Amino acid sequence: MIAFGGNALLRAGEKGTYEQQLANVERTCESLSRLLKEGYDIVIGHGNGPQVGNALLRHEAGTQLFSLESMPMDFCGAETQGSIAYMIESGMERVLHRAGIKRGVVSLVTRVEVSPDDPMFQHPSKPVGPYYTKEVALSRPGQWKEDAAGRGWRKVVASPKPLKINNIDLVERLAREGNIVITVGGGGIPVVADGDGHRGVEAVIDKDLASALAAVNMHADEFYILTDVPKVYINFRKDGEQALDSMTVEQAKAHLADGQFAEGSMAPKVRAGIMFVEQTGGKCVITEAGSLGNPSCGTEIIP
Amino acid sequence: MIAFGGNALLRAGEKGTYEQQLANVERTCESLSRLLKEGYDIVIGHGNGPQVGNALLRHEAGTQLFSLESMPMDFCGAETQGSIAYMIESGMERVLHRAGIKRGVVSLVTRVEVSPDDPMFQHPSKPVGPYYTKEVALSRPGQWKEDAAGRGWRKVVASPKPLKINNIDLVERLAREGNIVITVGGGGIPVVADGDGHRGVEAVIDKDLASALAAVNMHADEFYILTDVPKVYINFRKDGEQALDSMTVEQAKAHLADGQFAEGSMAPKVRAGIMFVEQTGGKCVITEAGSLGNPSCGTEIIP
Repeated sequence: MIAFGGNALLRAGEKGTYEQQLANVERTCESLSRLLKEGYDIVIGHGNGPQVGNALLRHEAGTQLFSLESMPMDFCGAETQGSIAYMIESGMERVLHRAGIKRGVVSLVTRVEVSPDDPMFQHPSKPVGPYYTKEVALSRPGQWKEDAAGRGWRKVVASPKPLKINNIDLVERLAREGNIVITVGGGGIPVVADGDGHRGVEAVIDKDLASALAAVNMHADEFYILTDVPKVYINFRKDGEQALDSMTVEQAKAHLADGQFAEGSMAPKVRAGIMFVEQTGGKCVITEAGSLGNPSCGTEIIP
Repeated sequence: MIAFGGNALLRAGEKGTYEQQLANVERTCESLSRLLKEGYDIVIGHGNGPQVGNALLRHEAGTQLFSLESMPMDFCGAETQGSIAYMIESGMERVLHRAGIKRGVVSLVTRVEVSPDDPMFQHPSKPVGPYYTKEVALSRPGQWKEDAAGRGWRKVVASPKPLKINNIDLVERLAREGNIVITVGGGGIPVVADGDGHRGVEAVIDKDLASALAAVNMHADEFYILTDVPKVYINFRKDGEQALDSMTVEQAKAHLADGQFAEGSMAPKVRAGIMFVEQTGGKCVITEAGSLGNPSCGTEIIP
């Protein structure tokens, strides 16, 4: 199981043209070459932070300019699953072709169930979508929060825990047949059980946690969490900065409790890694895409 | 194989709120109840005309208001595959649950290969996206055409013939295992072969033709094309209007040559039906969703 960061496609500081996104995703796919050559069965999860942010802005702009209906986050998340999976499929196909490897690439639209009673729904904290003036923001449904940098007010949504990934048995089967499977895009489309089925909720499921759950459900042997840095650090960008080759689950928990890992950045990755290692005893590595070719890359979380 | 019209979700004259779209898609899914109860293996293709139109408008609005990059049609088509499949999955799950039927529902992001030498690329005719002034339109890449009703200039793109549906073998296998599979959304994301892989092109693949190709590839026994009217008519909305219970392939071709079926409406459906019946000898019915419960519904195209 490999979790791609949302910026594996859309990088901070880039304009984000289509060509840039295609090049970025192909580079990220290229980084899986060693695993592909060694015959790994591969499932890819991916983030959608910048993409779903843009989708929400486009919906808002469409309402303002063309009086279109703005769709909620679950719908926008589903949109990004389609577009990002399409780009990953295209990039992966090129990488496979150049490596002379014949394998299928399959992308599933994936709903992920969360609990309506998840305590995070009482404490929405994840800012999403456009900035508004206080007046506009507070006239709209949902919870709103003023941006610390003074850019305006933004909707905040919950980040509930992923409980059940739709079709995960099928994902596992397709992967074990040799297909490269793309799933849980953006952490999955968040839904809650509702009478006859499920309905979408405005929330963001952490993509590393959703990927960890997928890895646990599929009994994956290895779980790679791709990020912007080659290793996990303590005292990151401070005096005494130290890159870690490995840390035990116990050490990782201590560093988390110590505030060593930033929320919204390294902390959720470390938590996802802990969850996977605790529940499976498998190998979890946090690293940057470019280092995946090196078998001793990254920071390994060990039992 | 069943082809849903794009307006099975977003109806002309409706505001197209999320709730309306969910209700429309659930009603369309409900219309498959008889087929579900009789144990049919089912693959669903769907249109995306109104949806991809809105996506293009949202991208344009996002550029104007928030300086976001506007993405091309293949990207927008992929977005609509994600969002529409998500809604169909949700609606189908409810219908299955109420009927007490346990079957999986799976949605694949689907690329469809077309030829770069397709003659339609020399004659783009399908208007898409926002209306612009002549000056703005002609300053942009692509081909542009003035709207007959004077609303402005719109980009026109080609509607090339679908040649190869990615992962169609897998779709067939999943369907024959009992899963309801959603694929070729919007006719599929149009791509052309390109060195190591495929690249997207600005085009619209007719969703009825793509669904017919899927039906042929999968050796489907029956192919239902859902539309807004219960049957195919000759002299539609004119003197001598006549609903057809059936027509032979030869009769259908004669009616087409006679201009009996409107382009962009009934004509492509009849052509898709002819293709399926000619190539498989299977049963093809064109009808409205609400009539599917009736075994003698619609207009059958017979060899």
